[in-house]
Amino acid sequence: MPSVPLFYQPDLTLSHLTTEESHHAIRVLRMRIGAALEVTDGLGTLASAELTSTESRKAAFKITNSTKFPRRASQIHLAVAPTKNIDRMEWMVEKCTEIGVDKISFVRCHTSERPKIPLERLIKVAVSAMKQSEQVWMPELGEMLPFDQFLSNVTEVQRFIAHVDETNSNHLTKMVKHQGDCILLVGPEGDFTKDELDLAISIGFTKVSLGQNRLRTETAAIFGVVALNARGSIADYSDLRITRT
Amino acid sequence: MPSVPLFYQPDLTLSHLTTEESHHAIRVLRMRIGAALEVTDGLGTLASAELTSTESRKAAFKITNSTKFPRRASQIHLAVAPTKNIDRMEWMVEKCTEIGVDKISFVRCHTSERPKIPLERLIKVAVSAMKQSEQVWMPELGEMLPFDQFLSNVTEVQRFIAHVDETNSNHLTKMVKHQGDCILLVGPEGDFTKDELDLAISIGFTKVSLGQNRLRTETAAIFGVVALNARGSIADYSDLRITRT
Repeated sequence: MPSVPLFYQPDLTLSHLTTEESHHAIRVLRMRIGAALEVTDGLGTLASAELTSTESRKAAFKITNSTKFPRRASQIHLAVAPTKNIDRMEWMVEKCTEIGVDKISFVRCHTSERPKIPLERLIKVAVSAMKQSEQVWMPELGEMLPFDQFLSNVTEVQRFIAHVDETNSNHLTKMVKHQGDCILLVGPEGDFTKDELDLAISIGFTKVSLGQNRLRTETAAIFGVVALNARGSIADYSDLRITRT
Repeated sequence: MPSVPLFYQPDLTLSHLTTEESHHAIRVLRMRIGAALEVTDGLGTLASAELTSTESRKAAFKITNSTKFPRRASQIHLAVAPTKNIDRMEWMVEKCTEIGVDKISFVRCHTSERPKIPLERLIKVAVSAMKQSEQVWMPELGEMLPFDQFLSNVTEVQRFIAHVDETNSNHLTKMVKHQGDCILLVGPEGDFTKDELDLAISIGFTKVSLGQNRLRTETAAIFGVVALNARGSIADYSDLRITRT
């Protein structure tokens, strides 16, 4: 663990921690006035600070130094049809955040078994994973959209849809370029319908394989996020390392 | 889901399912005499069979056809210092098995917080993940060994140890060859000691990075297994696909 604990406060102009983070600092870590902490807004800012009050619901801090880290050049957008079992989605959000993902979207497909997602809970999981993995950019998580509505808003140039059939054996790692924003669509437990596949392909999605094994939805998502993080140009991410002095 | 359920019976000469698999076939799936099933021994055999009795603790079957699939040419061995929280290890075994791993070893390091592992439970998780992902080779799981004893038995030629410091920024995906057996060592939550690192390096391990983010033990393990599965020669694994007629 780093010697200085990292907290999340999306609005750094407030100079105090959120209720939840205050509780963690004061009640769990038992921090005292003058203790050193780090605070990020999840938007690239990493502030060094010291605690100036120990109110357990509103612990105040004073920023002593602040650095802004740029968002990485090539972004990864994961779009997934949520599984029925929400624990598997929590795990997926935690692991994808740790490994590195810039945006996670939830998509309602024809065979989706889950009509709603507990977005607030999933955001909490992402915050915790961001802090645990010492990152300063929070992945964007958004409300679930129907498949066609979601597709009409896709902006990434490199578009992949995880699906294997006889006409396709292109592995994601072979298809993705070393640079550039990309999106990976992972289908529901019941898979995409032919109409959904056709629609995605009609707007420039390429079918990709994630290897020979049959993967669960959340495993396919994590596989994809690792493969996209590990693509050729590792140097691409070097500006993201938090250097502590 | 495949229309024909897959069961695991390590000894196919017995012609009946294990107690647990029998229960699943008869009580959960409510299969009847004459129903089609598939059985694997986890050693590459995939047998088509039909049910000949519905005893709920010893359901018998008759094999109608059997195919032996070779083990993949380039094997992946994951060696990991187990986390304190065993749920995280179960999850790791499940995901690594789904994605593809040939052997999972548990290693006791100087800073390991867990002196024992529930091996039987972890094997059950692997069996379930093997079936779920429609594979016919079970990964080998073995009892935990002390670090130095484990190292003295390593046979793989390509040896990697996940560790980042100032002298190392070689990403695993850049260091691994497209072919050949390899082992990846992932350290405990408290990391390897300098002595452990030195010992590993002295017998041919290379330090590798898994990217810039600080990953939990189980996340690093999954990251490594995906990266090793996704390495260059995807065609390498094509003989593993189960073709159903």
